[in-house]
Amino acid sequence: MSKTNMDIFETLESEVRSYCRDFPTVFAKAKGHKLFDENGREYIDFFSGAGALNYGHNDSKMKEKLIEYIMDDGITHSLDKATTAKAEFIEKFNEVILKPRDLNYKMMFPGPTGTNAVESALKLARKVTGRTDIISFTRGFHGMTIGSLSVTGNASKRKGAGVPLNHTVTMPYDQFVDETDSIKYLEQYLEDDGSGVDLPAAMIVETVQGEGGINAARFDWLKKVEEICKKHDILLIVDDIQAGIGRTGTFFSFEKAGIKPDIVCLSKSLSGYGVPFAIALFRPELDVWNPGEHNGTFRGNNHAFVTATAALDYWKDSSFEESIQEKSKITLDYLNKIVEENPELNGKVKGRGLMVGIECENGEIAGRVTSEAFNRGLVMETAGMDGEVFKLFPAVNIDEDALRKGLEIIEESVKAAVKEPVTN
Amino acid sequence: MSKTNMDIFETLESEVRSYCRDFPTVFAKAKGHKLFDENGREYIDFFSGAGALNYGHNDSKMKEKLIEYIMDDGITHSLDKATTAKAEFIEKFNEVILKPRDLNYKMMFPGPTGTNAVESALKLARKVTGRTDIISFTRGFHGMTIGSLSVTGNASKRKGAGVPLNHTVTMPYDQFVDETDSIKYLEQYLEDDGSGVDLPAAMIVETVQGEGGINAARFDWLKKVEEICKKHDILLIVDDIQAGIGRTGTFFSFEKAGIKPDIVCLSKSLSGYGVPFAIALFRPELDVWNPGEHNGTFRGNNHAFVTATAALDYWKDSSFEESIQEKSKITLDYLNKIVEENPELNGKVKGRGLMVGIECENGEIAGRVTSEAFNRGLVMETAGMDGEVFKLFPAVNIDEDALRKGLEIIEESVKAAVKEPVTN
Amino acid sequence: MSKTNMDIFETLESEVRSYCRDFPTVFAKAKGHKLFDENGREYIDFFSGAGALNYGHNDSKMKEKLIEYIMDDGITHSLDKATTAKAEFIEKFNEVILKPRDLNYKMMFPGPTGTNAVESALKLARKVTGRTDIISFTRGFHGMTIGSLSVTGNASKRKGAGVPLNHTVTMPYDQFVDETDSIKYLEQYLEDDGSGVDLPAAMIVETVQGEGGINAARFDWLKKVEEICKKHDILLIVDDIQAGIGRTGTFFSFEKAGIKPDIVCLSKSLSGYGVPFAIALFRPELDVWNPGEHNGTFRGNNHAFVTATAALDYWKDSSFEESIQEKSKITLDYLNKIVEENPELNGKVKGRGLMVGIECENGEIAGRVTSEAFNRGLVMETAGMDGEVFKLFPAVNIDEDALRKGLEIIEESVKAAVKEPVTN
Amino acid sequence: MSKTNMDIFETLESEVRSYCRDFPTVFAKAKGHKLFDENGREYIDFFSGAGALNYGHNDSKMKEKLIEYIMDDGITHSLDKATTAKAEFIEKFNEVILKPRDLNYKMMFPGPTGTNAVESALKLARKVTGRTDIISFTRGFHGMTIGSLSVTGNASKRKGAGVPLNHTVTMPYDQFVDETDSIKYLEQYLEDDGSGVDLPAAMIVETVQGEGGINAARFDWLKKVEEICKKHDILLIVDDIQAGIGRTGTFFSFEKAGIKPDIVCLSKSLSGYGVPFAIALFRPELDVWNPGEHNGTFRGNNHAFVTATAALDYWKDSSFEESIQEKSKITLDYLNKIVEENPELNGKVKGRGLMVGIECENGEIAGRVTSEAFNRGLVMETAGMDGEVFKLFPAVNIDEDALRKGLEIIEESVKAAVKEPVTN
Repeated sequence: MSKTNMDIFETLESEVRSYCRDFPTVFAKAKGHKLFDENGREYIDFFSGAGALNYGHNDSKMKEKLIEYIMDDGITHSLDKATTAKAEFIEKFNEVILKPRDLNYKMMFPGPTGTNAVESALKLARKVTGRTDIISFTRGFHGMTIGSLSVTGNASKRKGAGVPLNHTVTMPYDQFVDETDSIKYLEQYLEDDGSGVDLPAAMIVETVQGEGGINAARFDWLKKVEEICKKHDILLIVDDIQAGIGRTGTFFSFEKAGIKPDIVCLSKSLSGYGVPFAIALFRPELDVWNPGEHNGTFRGNNHAFVTATAALDYWKDSSFEESIQEKSKITLDYLNKIVEENPELNGKVKGRGLMVGIECENGEIAGRVTSEAFNRGLVMETAGMDGEVFKLFPAVNIDEDALRKGLEIIEESVKAAVKEPVTN
Repeated sequence: MSKTNMDIFETLESEVRSYCRDFPTVFAKAKGHKLFDENGREYIDFFSGAGALNYGHNDSKMKEKLIEYIMDDGITHSLDKATTAKAEFIEKFNEVILKPRDLNYKMMFPGPTGTNAVESALKLARKVTGRTDIISFTRGFHGMTIGSLSVTGNASKRKGAGVPLNHTVTMPYDQFVDETDSIKYLEQYLEDDGSGVDLPAAMIVETVQGEGGINAARFDWLKKVEEICKKHDILLIVDDIQAGIGRTGTFFSFEKAGIKPDIVCLSKSLSGYGVPFAIALFRPELDVWNPGEHNGTFRGNNHAFVTATAALDYWKDSSFEESIQEKSKITLDYLNKIVEENPELNGKVKGRGLMVGIECENGEIAGRVTSEAFNRGLVMETAGMDGEVFKLFPAVNIDEDALRKGLEIIEESVKAAVKEPVTN
Repeated sequence: MSKTNMDIFETLESEVRSYCRDFPTVFAKAKGHKLFDENGREYIDFFSGAGALNYGHNDSKMKEKLIEYIMDDGITHSLDKATTAKAEFIEKFNEVILKPRDLNYKMMFPGPTGTNAVESALKLARKVTGRTDIISFTRGFHGMTIGSLSVTGNASKRKGAGVPLNHTVTMPYDQFVDETDSIKYLEQYLEDDGSGVDLPAAMIVETVQGEGGINAARFDWLKKVEEICKKHDILLIVDDIQAGIGRTGTFFSFEKAGIKPDIVCLSKSLSGYGVPFAIALFRPELDVWNPGEHNGTFRGNNHAFVTATAALDYWKDSSFEESIQEKSKITLDYLNKIVEENPELNGKVKGRGLMVGIECENGEIAGRVTSEAFNRGLVMETAGMDGEVFKLFPAVNIDEDALRKGLEIIEESVKAAVKEPVTN
Repeated sequence: MSKTNMDIFETLESEVRSYCRDFPTVFAKAKGHKLFDENGREYIDFFSGAGALNYGHNDSKMKEKLIEYIMDDGITHSLDKATTAKAEFIEKFNEVILKPRDLNYKMMFPGPTGTNAVESALKLARKVTGRTDIISFTRGFHGMTIGSLSVTGNASKRKGAGVPLNHTVTMPYDQFVDETDSIKYLEQYLEDDGSGVDLPAAMIVETVQGEGGINAARFDWLKKVEEICKKHDILLIVDDIQAGIGRTGTFFSFEKAGIKPDIVCLSKSLSGYGVPFAIALFRPELDVWNPGEHNGTFRGNNHAFVTATAALDYWKDSSFEESIQEKSKITLDYLNKIVEENPELNGKVKGRGLMVGIECENGEIAGRVTSEAFNRGLVMETAGMDGEVFKLFPAVNIDEDALRKGLEIIEESVKAAVKEPVTN
């Protein structure tokens, strides 16, 4: 029995609320890969705040630093004034992340959410090139504010804009039509003077599409996209908000593709602790901003600087990446086994690293799996245009036992789900 | 001597950084109305995070609640899942704020920044009405993402968009042309079928424009704007992000105007503690959202729920409002005295509540005043299209002594500023 | 009894047809100021093809030249190839019209309709300045294609676009709000950096608005608009399609205002004979077109070159202008008398030259007047947002007797119209 | 020696003039397939006003009717008032063209140029469906006004707009990428909810692209496009302005594809005589226009009604179509022979009916061919993004001798052109 009157949400919160409908309980506490509702029920979290909690909940080291900072009356809110906490983050991010990867980027604090980072990236690309259009890709997801929404493919989200979304062209993502490579197509549109597609300022791409259905672009495709951008002097923006910060096995999701984007957007797990934080990274040559040309009240969320700095300790050597990749292998093997042993599911394993899922025949089946899982104590969401993919996002630092336990719940849930006939 | 190497910011942070150029020191701690830099120098804060710190820095009661919550591993990040912290905020906000003001609003958590709230308000207005255009007002400021930027008047910010900003019409704010009321004009545009202005979905207005130069619309003007909206079935959106949460003397800035907006946007000081938080409020009849139609990773920032709930204690009776109004009187009297006694300043006192300032002849003079003030230990910024207004935003719970001390510094700064001849 | 089966129009022509509903007969012939229907009924034409027949129908001298040209197998259609007929028009237009008025313009043949001329003018202004926006004026009318429609004020026409009409700002025309001059307002919008109005490429204005309700801008207002344009380096486009070619008493309608637009659009009566023809004129410095950058199949309508050349003979000395001005005086005196003697009409005389009308209380009254007039053998239309102005557009070369006869019919029609009570 | 001073064009006509640069002489007369310049030099016309003179110049029967009409003071200009000439055209067009082809269309007179017809078609499609976007095809050409330009692919023409062109998506035309059918691609974009392409109001397509480089879509492709439109309730607009009126061998170019478009745009050769005229045809169910919702001064060009009515006599039986098809065969055989016998040309024969051409390696070669041809007395233009196709548009009623003579000149011109080395 819940202690909180659920009427509060129904009568006072907008109908736009969503996840509370899928997970109908009131959550109270969380630690690592575990969530607890107010009745003390425990859940394994394979949702991880849609990628905002890659290090699990309330990581002890980050927590310690954060408490200490607050206790000590460290600056909380600073806009873009200089603070000690900010200086520490900037310096450590450069040392631990950028330099070892041979990436020379300047950092912009565009506001604390992913869509702030995307909007600032689009603005900068347009300013640098003097061009208007952006090429995005089918099924891409980049945010809900008008600039970001205009490069998002999802029809129902787009419709929510209430205005036509312009100055963008949606090109086919890898394997959008059958198994085909869409590169030839992309080239022809850029090279034919009658294509109706003007030379864009930038292309914005996710290396693995999360909301779009856990679609992993092949490295070769990404490489070719980068080549096309270079050839035509188009800026390449990687939106690494969901796929970055270790989710696919490396800090940046694009590392193994061997590409170096001109602009990178990070958010979600960047703070480590689940507090709002985002940055845009770009080549120093692109830093043509005037002071204050893009601003925002919460650019200086110092709590996030503190926890994000602490989170960087995970990345001091390669062991963390290796551990994610091992857990990825376990997970993918397990999912493949589920698909093989449950032919009624007609499933297809998708994804990379710990950003994986199984594509079902339709949203009803996938929804049934997540629902069965929730009943069994596992929180997991669906993705894809029809919600046809159930999506595993365990904390990337989850221990193997918990990972296997979660996978077992999924296996049981699949078995339960495929028993009933599909109704729609 | 600063301990932090300032090169960090210059070489690694984007040129877009701004306030760190005006206040060239590294801040380390803060408490109440005081800021401390890392060398231990103390500043009176008449900036208050551009309105995000109306209760001052690191308020003790909020801090206590926040520490307790974090220590206890309360949920930090929850998207729009139900949490105990969220339920408490919703319920208390309704009890302490909405009900006593006879406001019947539903709450939407659109993401944690002001621009998220504005974007969601615009979307909703367009969805409810099926119309495309929004009327905004000259010198209005509503945010940096493309939707919000399209209703922002500032030319240089608009230019940063890199795309034409459409589906909006900018109407004259109160006293935009001389001392005239712009109501007749607004009516004619809406009522003449040849005006080229289509019936808009909504009007979005600030009751006092902060960024625009501390322009306070007369209550009568606001009342007439509301009447026009009602007459034409146009939704009235009040962007109370900067003017709300006590800044002008009441919780909502529009209370004394006797209007009830259809949609209200709040952010900045809403969390009380300076952490990212925003809500959109609207009449229940307007709540036509589909679940998840607008989403965002940081809608459920539970740290903010906790401190925002604690902050509501300030509003349990009318004494807080009265104290702000008293301090407003002190401040306005002092500023008027400054203007009178320094005719060389040619200043004009502007604003309402503790959202006040002095308009100088140009940005050079005003900038000189804030610069002199910084040297004397007071942090304060400028506003207006040329930065011609120096802007006093003390914490609204500042004690009278500190307030007077700040005002004295300003007086001295003005005297110093008017001594030198203007160069541009 | 009509010989033509009217079902042809009802069953085979689109519902968009309009004037055939107001003038329900089948016209067969026309000469000078007279129209004849197929039953031989004669009408005085105070409509003049909405300004396309300023010289009346089938002017004998033009007819002779046209017949001769056709008989002789002169080139009919030439795109923008050089033809003898085109050379003659260009040369004579320069000699007879431009030079004596001290106007140094290049000529562009943008396609044969007014909207082609307006679209080309907008394109050129945007190209020359590198800016996007155009300022148009309330109640302006410039055409039905998307570019021209975007600078047209009429709400129902705009709605027909089916897409939002962007990149334009509609500023108040002279006396849009009461009797006030809108200049101060216009200046403030251009000079305040927070006005939300970006520096436009051009302003497009009609000196007398035809469709908008026969609104004549004061010469002083036009002069100030020109000054503002010059000050801000904004191009001034005069759309002289309806008001030009003698309609207001001089060849160009702007001559007496003492202004020299950067770009002028002409069409309607330019061919003299009612065949499609349009030109855009602009200062030579603005001629930055690439060859073929704007094109169109019917740019070279040689029949129009021939008749337009013949029409220029009217302008060889000042006698024609004087005669129009005399007839204007007669007409305005007569209309003023009608208004005075029929106080029930509550009418207001509007306009300039022979572009005049009476504004009635509403469209019903005005429509009743035109309907009564049609029954009495006079063709005349209404204008204004509600059709509240009945509009006198006699041929500018009409003889005085016919003019007076038409005015008498109008007087009778007004008397008949004001007898009945208004129903809506 | 030219009698006309060519300086007239250089000093007084805009730089936008184009064809007069390719054909540097002053034309004076024309008859049938022949053009004469003012020095009496004779040219075979394989240009035919870019498709506006399919019946050749100054056809004797049409001329007779036109002269008679003018002599008799028939109404010249009528807006959309009913006239005898208009009634005759409507009735005969229905009897001779529509009924025998089992097409049930209403006629709209949208203004006299192709772009007027296209703009009205787009407006209507948007109005009927309530949707905003239009799908057009790569290399499509539909006109120069902003609405039509937004569905035109040509990059340099688009750039001329000076504003972003929105509310359109350019899909790949048949064989845009290699020899592939683009149908699968089109389907995927329409059926995937994450494609970023909203359900459009309409698709607009040319069956053979003229300006785009004489690209003939396969009938099967057109059939599939129609099926997709039907499936998704998208209106199919065929822009038959250049390919219609016999140019490809049948009255409408789409007849042999076995499709029935929802809307058809006609212009260019519709008047038969080269005078401005255009119509939009659509299914009666789509006729949701309000009276006057789209208007325009030159909708009622009665000279065009007269000649267009006369031109319909060509279509009273199938003999005319058969003769065109015979001449097409002769032409294509000849062109294939030219390509085979001149391997240095590396040419490719393209097109359908008498809308044909040879694609050369680049624009320099093709331009050399047309230039050589002009010197030999044949007028012909180039098409394609680089002008790489020389384009044969003889009058469709040309006699075989003249046709062969023209082809011989082309053969000689090719031989001359391939002799010189290419320089760019």
